[in-house]
Amino acid sequence: MRLAIDAMGNDNGPYPILEGVRKYLARDKKSQIILVGHEDKIRPLLVETRLVDNDRVIIRHAPQVIEMEDKLSALREKRDSSIAKVVELVKTGEADAMVALGNTMAAVATTRMGLKHLEGVHRAGIAVPMPSVCGVCIVNDMGANINSKPKHLYTYGVMASSYSHYVLGVDNPRVGLLNVGEEEVKGSDILKDAFSLLKNAPINFIGNVEGGDIFNGKCDVVVCDGFVGNAVLKASEAVASTMGIILRNAIKSSWLSMLGAALAKPAFKQLKQAANYDQYGGAPLLGVNGVCIIGHGRSNSTAVMNALRVAHESVAHRLNEHIHEALCQTNFALNDN
Amino acid sequence: MRLAIDAMGNDNGPYPILEGVRKYLARDKKSQIILVGHEDKIRPLLVETRLVDNDRVIIRHAPQVIEMEDKLSALREKRDSSIAKVVELVKTGEADAMVALGNTMAAVATTRMGLKHLEGVHRAGIAVPMPSVCGVCIVNDMGANINSKPKHLYTYGVMASSYSHYVLGVDNPRVGLLNVGEEEVKGSDILKDAFSLLKNAPINFIGNVEGGDIFNGKCDVVVCDGFVGNAVLKASEAVASTMGIILRNAIKSSWLSMLGAALAKPAFKQLKQAANYDQYGGAPLLGVNGVCIIGHGRSNSTAVMNALRVAHESVAHRLNEHIHEALCQTNFALNDN
Repeated sequence: MRLAIDAMGNDNGPYPILEGVRKYLARDKKSQIILVGHEDKIRPLLVETRLVDNDRVIIRHAPQVIEMEDKLSALREKRDSSIAKVVELVKTGEADAMVALGNTMAAVATTRMGLKHLEGVHRAGIAVPMPSVCGVCIVNDMGANINSKPKHLYTYGVMASSYSHYVLGVDNPRVGLLNVGEEEVKGSDILKDAFSLLKNAPINFIGNVEGGDIFNGKCDVVVCDGFVGNAVLKASEAVASTMGIILRNAIKSSWLSMLGAALAKPAFKQLKQAANYDQYGGAPLLGVNGVCIIGHGRSNSTAVMNALRVAHESVAHRLNEHIHEALCQTNFALNDN
Repeated sequence: MRLAIDAMGNDNGPYPILEGVRKYLARDKKSQIILVGHEDKIRPLLVETRLVDNDRVIIRHAPQVIEMEDKLSALREKRDSSIAKVVELVKTGEADAMVALGNTMAAVATTRMGLKHLEGVHRAGIAVPMPSVCGVCIVNDMGANINSKPKHLYTYGVMASSYSHYVLGVDNPRVGLLNVGEEEVKGSDILKDAFSLLKNAPINFIGNVEGGDIFNGKCDVVVCDGFVGNAVLKASEAVASTMGIILRNAIKSSWLSMLGAALAKPAFKQLKQAANYDQYGGAPLLGVNGVCIIGHGRSNSTAVMNALRVAHESVAHRLNEHIHEALCQTNFALNDN
């Protein structure tokens, strides 16, 4: 298998990406990795990351980079960007899957334009794995689309259920629809219609859920429009980091607390581990005609390694075929209205 | 001043409410409190809470209670409920303000029906104070309304700005519109129109903000539709409590960690205090023709005391007059379309 990765999409330069590739190749003894980006910036790091002379590592030169602060209009101006090249490799079949890092919206737009959607899907969604008390909960969509219609919400649910099952190995994933209450009659007309569609979908739909159910272990997949998904993601990250800041400052204010915190360090480490996004391997852009995993611009080498791992798993377990089969079972999603 | 409180709306019975009333009356030497609920359940607790023979405490009998699990249809069946009576007291002018606890949606519906809306307001919003790194951020609306139109979002912003300034004492509150990015062109047409209205409102509108900005101190007021507000509130509470559970379990797993946590107890206490909703005094239902503060069904006596305090402040600082004045400055909100 060949996996293409945008080597320029990290806030800290290509090093963590190359280091992640090295870690990945140490585990997967067969795959090849195509590093896409500016050759002059990648090649000098090969020695340091012990990837030099590794015939499973291929470099593809791309002279331009979409920066984090670039607007979507930059996609037109930078046609030779690393992300455009990565998408091209999947489109032509030179790569079996891609990993994008950095500017999420640019990655989403480029991938959609290049790979197009799977049959029966009209909007690809960013399915973000969130830590929950019983492992991980996939929230789809986390910001690729606003104003989602019932059929879009329906496909988010079917696609994320397939991902949870075939890639994350969850048995019969419980899928909930994000709403303001649990009763079927709750929410807007769009949500009521989405509820009906999901109820008849070939998935384990458990009905309406609330924002807290992402984290409390009640479900494995939460379906929502990208607007609310984005707000929930950003708010949740901020709550976690604000709590960390307050606690850290409070601990620093007395030497007794500092001693206590030192003794309780393994417990803090456990908490950090539970809230650690690195192990989940990025967020798949579900619904495009190919496999695309999107990682954070701040990804460390472990996160990069895991993004490559879930990209590999998605291909190996024929994720998109399963999504297509599930959508075919209820043919209404194939209509374009 | 006379404040009416639903004495039946607490998950743990009337005791925490009466205890909260006692604490409140110890600070406010002039006001009277009308305890509304079943006399047989309130009266026996007066001795215990040292409220017996206090001529500033009045009991109004209401034979029925809207329970937490009651649906809105129960409002029609239980016309003699404590919450209906509380609203009636404000409507007739016997009370200057009300505090409702327990079933939030029942409180919202009863209050709207009884008090109606302020001129220029078409939808009252629940304005919930959330802890932020620089104090408190008011999020309006937190779940009273879904499918909010631009003019509703506009009024949520104006009303919450007035509350932040006149009741919480924030100087020139910074008001943000919750969106998926900061640029003016972001989001749905509804949000773009709301942005234009808020930009011309007599408030300190700082533009679009994201979910994380509720907590990081960037703004004092966040405007959003009740659907997303509700999801963000529930998710944030769940993140905080899940982090607490994971950390507690991790600490319990080793005696060294337990010793460390004991030493660092003041730091944990500081964190708990920062995340403590009790001190904020509940959430005002902004936009009804009267003052209504809604508290949690799990409110302790401190939360009850503070709910009474902000109810008092809202009346004393003529909150609704200020809201009306602000809305009059931009007369489009007064149109009913």
